[in-house]
Amino acid sequence: MNPLSRFSINQMTVKQLALPELTEACVRLGVPAVGLWREPVAEYGLDATAKLVRDAGLSVTSLCRGGFLTATDEGDRARALEDNRAAIDEAATLGTDTLVMVSGGLPVGSRDLVAARERIADALSVLAPYAAERGVRLAIEPLHPMFASDRCVVSTLDQALDLAERFPADQVGVVVDTYHIWWDDRAPAAVARAGATGRIHSFQLADWTTPLPAGVLNGRGQLGDGAIDMREWRERVESAGWTGFIEVELFNDGLWARDGVEVLEETAGRFVDCAG
Amino acid sequence: MNPLSRFSINQMTVKQLALPELTEACVRLGVPAVGLWREPVAEYGLDATAKLVRDAGLSVTSLCRGGFLTATDEGDRARALEDNRAAIDEAATLGTDTLVMVSGGLPVGSRDLVAARERIADALSVLAPYAAERGVRLAIEPLHPMFASDRCVVSTLDQALDLAERFPADQVGVVVDTYHIWWDDRAPAAVARAGATGRIHSFQLADWTTPLPAGVLNGRGQLGDGAIDMREWRERVESAGWTGFIEVELFNDGLWARDGVEVLEETAGRFVDCAG
Repeated sequence: MNPLSRFSINQMTVKQLALPELTEACVRLGVPAVGLWREPVAEYGLDATAKLVRDAGLSVTSLCRGGFLTATDEGDRARALEDNRAAIDEAATLGTDTLVMVSGGLPVGSRDLVAARERIADALSVLAPYAAERGVRLAIEPLHPMFASDRCVVSTLDQALDLAERFPADQVGVVVDTYHIWWDDRAPAAVARAGATGRIHSFQLADWTTPLPAGVLNGRGQLGDGAIDMREWRERVESAGWTGFIEVELFNDGLWARDGVEVLEETAGRFVDCAG
Repeated sequence: MNPLSRFSINQMTVKQLALPELTEACVRLGVPAVGLWREPVAEYGLDATAKLVRDAGLSVTSLCRGGFLTATDEGDRARALEDNRAAIDEAATLGTDTLVMVSGGLPVGSRDLVAARERIADALSVLAPYAAERGVRLAIEPLHPMFASDRCVVSTLDQALDLAERFPADQVGVVVDTYHIWWDDRAPAAVARAGATGRIHSFQLADWTTPLPAGVLNGRGQLGDGAIDMREWRERVESAGWTGFIEVELFNDGLWARDGVEVLEETAGRFVDCAG
């Protein structure tokens, strides 16, 4: 069996590669799937990207990202919903059934996490049926608590499930990303909870390395370089019923500064060595 | 009533002040209490510091810090226990009943958080009775999950309580520090749990501001500058039974670059404005 048969490369990991370079390299290296991001897809063209990956025979495991649903201003909320509907349409066009949702942080001047989380639920009640009509599932990604104020007020897998479980499992689920939840002693039980209710919609790997860089966004470590036991997490998530692709999504200035194909080969190798 | 009657300034907040400058400014400004750190105390002299704060009529609300109990190497573990016994003795000499414990991160090359947490429990079983004989309580401080690999594998208040509750409440408790737990939707219940069992041994305030600096250690925000509702947290912790001093502990390069007395005055003012 191809040791990469479950491997999906998230486009951000090798963002220095243009889409044709990425798809060509995936085909040559036997990488069967990619996770895409809206901005580079829009840059290359939505339909052109859909054709490119389809012709290359690649699966699209997810589109990043929808979300940012915590605004209090009515105009901002309306624009956010419109942007999420567009993201859902784009996911459908790209042939992926999973839109990753990064819920959003606290509005400027607000200190009310509870109210922000409720606004996310309100928005999901509008977006989930729209997505379902287009064959797209919304995957709520809990982000590490260090992002709670400025990016995502959903900080644990249990919180994400508390939101998702208000909706049908085929409409709203969660992303299990090792980078965000590895530290949480309740995460293993939450993975089982997500699996039992069919809510695992995406599984992503990144390692935890320190020191964190300023702003902390681009410190996601290459598999094997950090504190997370990738094989243990793969076994945990698969024991919960996950049989889909496993995306490796790294934001890392060091990796972005290198040759993209070399980084893709290294990442595929690390996937086999650390999580194969 | 003096609006600062419950205020304690942690020495680290104004580390640019020598101990005599700090105590003099506290007396002049009506600040009744200080939290001390071992390194500057050792630098000024343990007995000299004890006399200085005693003569100034200041309460010492805590000593930072013991801990770092996760080593696997036997020699390292023995040295850590010895260092913690010394810290306990220093706390007793300084006249504080509370030693703050920062438990320690993962040993180099280890990815086993569960085992590391067990080694902390093993060490506490040795240190807690030693501390109790000297009238000192060990206060386990959960640190923000962004420190889980390199500083403290105890990341939530519930985890800290799971450890503390293995011991008598007058021997081992927890630190409630807003900076580390503000994001956690389970923290309010954990504060109630800690209060109900008499486990709140220290209450510290710092605000959450972004972007985080490289290394993330020195990004603790001045009260009122960030995402945390200080008054809500004070009410929450006092509702759980806390009647002691409230320490403000900020690690912040910007504050350290300014005049220390000015920062102390500002911090006292923010305490009154945001948590008074």
